[in-house]
Amino acid sequence: MPIGLPRLTTLLIATLLPAAALVAGEAAPPMIGFEAGNARAELALEARFDEQLDAREMRAWLERMSAEPNQVGSPHDKANAEFMLERFRAWGWQAQIETFYVLYPTPTHVALELVGPHRFTAALVEPPIAGDRSSSRTKGVLPPYNVYGADGDVTGELVYVNFGMPDDYKELARRNVSVKGRIVIARYGGGWRGLKPKLAYEHGAIGCIIYSDPRDDGYGAADTYPAGAGRPAAGLQRGSVADMPIYSGDPLTPGIGATKDAPRIDRSAAQSLLKIPVLPISYRDARPFLEALGGPRAPAAWRGGLPFTYHIGPGPARAHLAISSDWAQREIYDVVAKLAGSAYPDQWVLRGNHHDGWVFGADDPLSGNVALMAEMKAIGALAASGWRPKRTLVYASWDGEEAGLLGSTEWVETHAAELAGKAVAYVNSDSNTRGFLGAGGSHTLQRLLNEVAAGVLDPLQAASVLARARAAAIVGASRGAAHTPEERRVAKGLLDGGDLPLEPLGSGSDFTPFLQHAGIPSLHLGFGGSEPGGVYHSLYDSFDHYIKVEDPDLRYGVTLAKVAGHVMLRLADADLVPLRAQDFSATVARYVEEIERYADRIREEAQDNHRLLDEKIYELAVNVTDPVGPPARDADVPYLNFAPLRNAATALGTSARAFDAAYAAALADPARLTPARAAAANGLLAGAERALLGEPGLPGRPWYRHMVYAPGLYTGYGAKTLPAVREAVEERHWSEVGDSVTMTAAALDAYRRALDAATAALR
Amino acid sequence: MPIGLPRLTTLLIATLLPAAALVAGEAAPPMIGFEAGNARAELALEARFDEQLDAREMRAWLERMSAEPNQVGSPHDKANAEFMLERFRAWGWQAQIETFYVLYPTPTHVALELVGPHRFTAALVEPPIAGDRSSSRTKGVLPPYNVYGADGDVTGELVYVNFGMPDDYKELARRNVSVKGRIVIARYGGGWRGLKPKLAYEHGAIGCIIYSDPRDDGYGAADTYPAGAGRPAAGLQRGSVADMPIYSGDPLTPGIGATKDAPRIDRSAAQSLLKIPVLPISYRDARPFLEALGGPRAPAAWRGGLPFTYHIGPGPARAHLAISSDWAQREIYDVVAKLAGSAYPDQWVLRGNHHDGWVFGADDPLSGNVALMAEMKAIGALAASGWRPKRTLVYASWDGEEAGLLGSTEWVETHAAELAGKAVAYVNSDSNTRGFLGAGGSHTLQRLLNEVAAGVLDPLQAASVLARARAAAIVGASRGAAHTPEERRVAKGLLDGGDLPLEPLGSGSDFTPFLQHAGIPSLHLGFGGSEPGGVYHSLYDSFDHYIKVEDPDLRYGVTLAKVAGHVMLRLADADLVPLRAQDFSATVARYVEEIERYADRIREEAQDNHRLLDEKIYELAVNVTDPVGPPARDADVPYLNFAPLRNAATALGTSARAFDAAYAAALADPARLTPARAAAANGLLAGAERALLGEPGLPGRPWYRHMVYAPGLYTGYGAKTLPAVREAVEERHWSEVGDSVTMTAAALDAYRRALDAATAALR
Repeated sequence: MPIGLPRLTTLLIATLLPAAALVAGEAAPPMIGFEAGNARAELALEARFDEQLDAREMRAWLERMSAEPNQVGSPHDKANAEFMLERFRAWGWQAQIETFYVLYPTPTHVALELVGPHRFTAALVEPPIAGDRSSSRTKGVLPPYNVYGADGDVTGELVYVNFGMPDDYKELARRNVSVKGRIVIARYGGGWRGLKPKLAYEHGAIGCIIYSDPRDDGYGAADTYPAGAGRPAAGLQRGSVADMPIYSGDPLTPGIGATKDAPRIDRSAAQSLLKIPVLPISYRDARPFLEALGGPRAPAAWRGGLPFTYHIGPGPARAHLAISSDWAQREIYDVVAKLAGSAYPDQWVLRGNHHDGWVFGADDPLSGNVALMAEMKAIGALAASGWRPKRTLVYASWDGEEAGLLGSTEWVETHAAELAGKAVAYVNSDSNTRGFLGAGGSHTLQRLLNEVAAGVLDPLQAASVLARARAAAIVGASRGAAHTPEERRVAKGLLDGGDLPLEPLGSGSDFTPFLQHAGIPSLHLGFGGSEPGGVYHSLYDSFDHYIKVEDPDLRYGVTLAKVAGHVMLRLADADLVPLRAQDFSATVARYVEEIERYADRIREEAQDNHRLLDEKIYELAVNVTDPVGPPARDADVPYLNFAPLRNAATALGTSARAFDAAYAAALADPARLTPARAAAANGLLAGAERALLGEPGLPGRPWYRHMVYAPGLYTGYGAKTLPAVREAVEERHWSEVGDSVTMTAAALDAYRRALDAATAALR
Repeated sequence: MPIGLPRLTTLLIATLLPAAALVAGEAAPPMIGFEAGNARAELALEARFDEQLDAREMRAWLERMSAEPNQVGSPHDKANAEFMLERFRAWGWQAQIETFYVLYPTPTHVALELVGPHRFTAALVEPPIAGDRSSSRTKGVLPPYNVYGADGDVTGELVYVNFGMPDDYKELARRNVSVKGRIVIARYGGGWRGLKPKLAYEHGAIGCIIYSDPRDDGYGAADTYPAGAGRPAAGLQRGSVADMPIYSGDPLTPGIGATKDAPRIDRSAAQSLLKIPVLPISYRDARPFLEALGGPRAPAAWRGGLPFTYHIGPGPARAHLAISSDWAQREIYDVVAKLAGSAYPDQWVLRGNHHDGWVFGADDPLSGNVALMAEMKAIGALAASGWRPKRTLVYASWDGEEAGLLGSTEWVETHAAELAGKAVAYVNSDSNTRGFLGAGGSHTLQRLLNEVAAGVLDPLQAASVLARARAAAIVGASRGAAHTPEERRVAKGLLDGGDLPLEPLGSGSDFTPFLQHAGIPSLHLGFGGSEPGGVYHSLYDSFDHYIKVEDPDLRYGVTLAKVAGHVMLRLADADLVPLRAQDFSATVARYVEEIERYADRIREEAQDNHRLLDEKIYELAVNVTDPVGPPARDADVPYLNFAPLRNAATALGTSARAFDAAYAAALADPARLTPARAAAANGLLAGAERALLGEPGLPGRPWYRHMVYAPGLYTGYGAKTLPAVREAVEERHWSEVGDSVTMTAAALDAYRRALDAATAALR
């Protein structure tokens, strides 16, 4: 369940220095957190690390681990965990499997039929594909399903709801189409999968079908597998529909670790469980349902790639959807390994990738997992030669990510107190394919990542991965039409020599509990963007597909291991925790501005809209052959008091400048940076991000406590920054804005005071 | 060959006064060109005119005239001309048929086959459709063809070139695909049809296939006929591919009337004839050709609605295209009728619509032609009751429009001298369907049209057609994403109460020789936009289709007759020629600004592009699985001297203000506006637009002489305003810019002096 292929703007910046020069050693580039002499040593260490990485070995792990279905509860999932445990120990790590006990329904009966105006029974199978060996190894493959959907047996008229996002329901209302008592069919895309049935339920629907439209994810995007990477007609996208924006992890143990004896809430009380049945299907299965719809023609933007005119319904198509599941408790296996730090054993630098897949999971998640394994083997070899990191390294391969970040969430919840005292940073990866480096994360780590990426060579060109990512972002944004002002701003900044910004993190992979629940600065890294997904969460996400069209010789797997490994080594070895405060303060200031501009914009739009309604402009503009009613009358948007947020952001900027100056001065003068002074500063910096956690957490979802980064309640994987304030404005909860501003400003003030304390320690 | 469905922004503005109130008579609204008392009388006249319009009779004419194929050279084409001649005379008009003798090739043999990697023979027929009576009446239907394409028999590898427009060839070059010695297949859209084979030829192609893609014009746009209005799978779009942006009319008599004995150039010297064979086909026929293409995947924006992944080629698809034609001279029949003016018999107000179709031509052109006939019958009845227009009315039904505006062009060329002395304005129409009023034309007539449209009721709502068009433009532009800053500017202007601007005229219908060759202020009017075209230039443009989905009871036909008829009556009866100069001067000033901004923009883009090329950003951003090379290095864009144009536009604005003030003052004081003074002013105003003709015409195409409006050399139907200057900049002919600025400024100055003279006459 990766956050998806990196958008080009997610990608990283570059100096144009070839990495070969950077690792040569004479002219060390700036290395945040390191004294000059130590930086030179660190480069040499990284060169030794790189020498240990072996693409053929990674390929062998990938083939082995993706040989059988490895979803939660499968024998191969456990076997993979045990294989890693044995390897990690062999490589010198102190490793163990931590087992958690989670609610994990699996389907026992799944059926979907068109029952009117004619009959059709959906096949709901992904048949073997010539040349793809694992596609015929279907022993242990579960029927298609969206985990944490409800059981049910429903029959009703069908309504096509486009992506099934909030704006789509507004369009339906303008056409007098209600989904109440009906079954919706939505295409994938436009927002997180779990929102589709959630919104359908909130609008009164009794069931939800989600299909992959070939325009977005099929022949419209790429030649279909096996001719190309694209989704074949029978390929379908499984995935979780738990309400993760409320909390991630086991639905029955919100906020606490799902250990054997943990107290559990009743299933009926679990807020993250969906209330209606939902089923993912292929476009081959979807076609007869969509083609049987009547009613209004779908708006132009709703039309997909099937060769007929899309209609909305309701009916005459009627569907019957039946799902029963085994709501058993199952075991999940996190494999966690440590290598103790020499100077700061109680400062932990964490790294993770999950190992459970939807079926074979070669790309998602094993391509990222084998990079993590390669890093561990290389670090083990460095350790065997006598090296020790200054800080403790913690590497983990999580289980149960696909269902809802189960393994990582339960581990974080179980070890919450220890993490609060010790965690310095968490580095995540998930799927990885050919293409360009994508990175999101905490903006204090932006400089670190830029420096690391500038020092890693792209496997196909004599340029750093940063140079390539930077170029892709510039060229992508300069192509025009499809791009936002934000993307153009980023491209302009890059051309002017600025660092490539990290994308803020929403959700969709294991960084969520670390960053948003526990307040641990996080990075999420991966390569991609060369080819469209095509097999995402399908049976065809296989070793053969991966080797054929994703990363044939795992060169980008090795490159991910370099980037993530260097980040880990620098975090572990830095003289001072490697962060730059001004990248964060400037980003926060921009977020505040964004929200203010957004409020101004929706205020003007509401005024315009009211004028058009009052003057009957919509009625006058009605097209008799395709009538669309006026939009609903939004409430007026009041002027809101963002001043406390502005004040906090401005003060943060001042403190950040002072901190960065003191930090640079300390590192430039090793005589002044005594071990005691460094230890004092590091102690303060290691836990600084926890100041950004607010109590009692975000409105309506207290599990999410970070006041700067969260997944959106109505975007799912997509990030909302300064979420308490932004969502109060977006959801038009005007009365909430004041408290949200106060709480967010308080968190920024707390972080500012933490910086000020560190500045004082460094002076 | 209409200029296409009106875009919403083409549509007209509105006061929200219901037209019913406007025609009641007590409170006459402002009526440009009329003294108050005369305005009241004119409203009464219009009410009598409206009473004469009879939708059932129009429907009967439409059914009769579309009963058989009526392309140039068909028996029914001549029969329709004779029918109209008889009617016009019966209605009291002085009418005659003027015959011209034009080169008009018709196909004798047409064949298209896929010859590799497998064989397929294109059907090239439009089979009967259930419920459409004329679709089985195929006697006299010609094979599909694009008139004025070359004969030829060619075989070669196929290349998909998207729309076949200049930017598409840049994309091909970036993928190292050449069309040299190959056959291109282009989809309709993106620019005028005739440019597709022209550009293909200029890039070395030996043949051209044009097809209608179902995404744009088929099931992707609407349910297909007979279920809806959309283009059925076998429907194909005929059309002219003469190089009309060079000159319109008979290819062998550029600039002179194609009378029986006119001197003719040799076919080989005819600049407007295409050099390679070209054939229009349906998407049913196109599919096997496109599906057989290999090579690079088509860029996302190139992908159509057929259910497979589009590729560019070249090959392995190979095509064989053979076309032979009978290059005969044929007769065309313009039916021209006059009603002499009482006060100014030598001031002509002209109105036209063509009567030839591609097959049955119910929508295009007969729906507009029956409105023109209804106007003539109504005016005849007014005349029979003793009324006479002040100015002479000239109504014409043109032949041969589809092939290249043959009838109108030859008539204008034949009567050039008389028109130069007498023509006041020309009002054109073509296809007409349900929807919203669209209007383009000379901006001096903008106020007139706004006033007329404010006084005509929409047939479906109690609102004026102006109110509805204004609403459609506002709502259309407020929908966001798909809209240009220009459209948003228009919408904002409308909301603030401004007149709805006329679209500038390019080409594609019979206004071209009047406006752009002869310098006669023109309007082009029509309703549309309710349903996508679907049957444009196909066999299925039939009476049954028209009645079923276009304008079932011809209510919008009657409404067009009202709008065009009122415009004609006001032009004929006005005390002073009804024009407002500031609408024109303000529009010209905006065009000057547009061109300056455009030059600035491409200068910056060139600078950015050079920087990206120099820094190898494109190479760094290459996607290994879909490699696209860097764009070509454009020349630097110099700073250019637009000052003479700015000066001319500013001076024009000053004179326009003075003129409009003097004009309003004269009409407000009937005692001052003596007949002699009015005659003097009218004499100056009638011919004022001729001042905008420049000698020796536009660079490379002297037939086009208007310095403000022209069809684009590389947009075809699309307008280029201030064309000499704009195209010199767009085509990067820097050395031409100076002369073009001088010539255009001189024309604006001449027009300003004509206005000044009229102002003096009015004072």
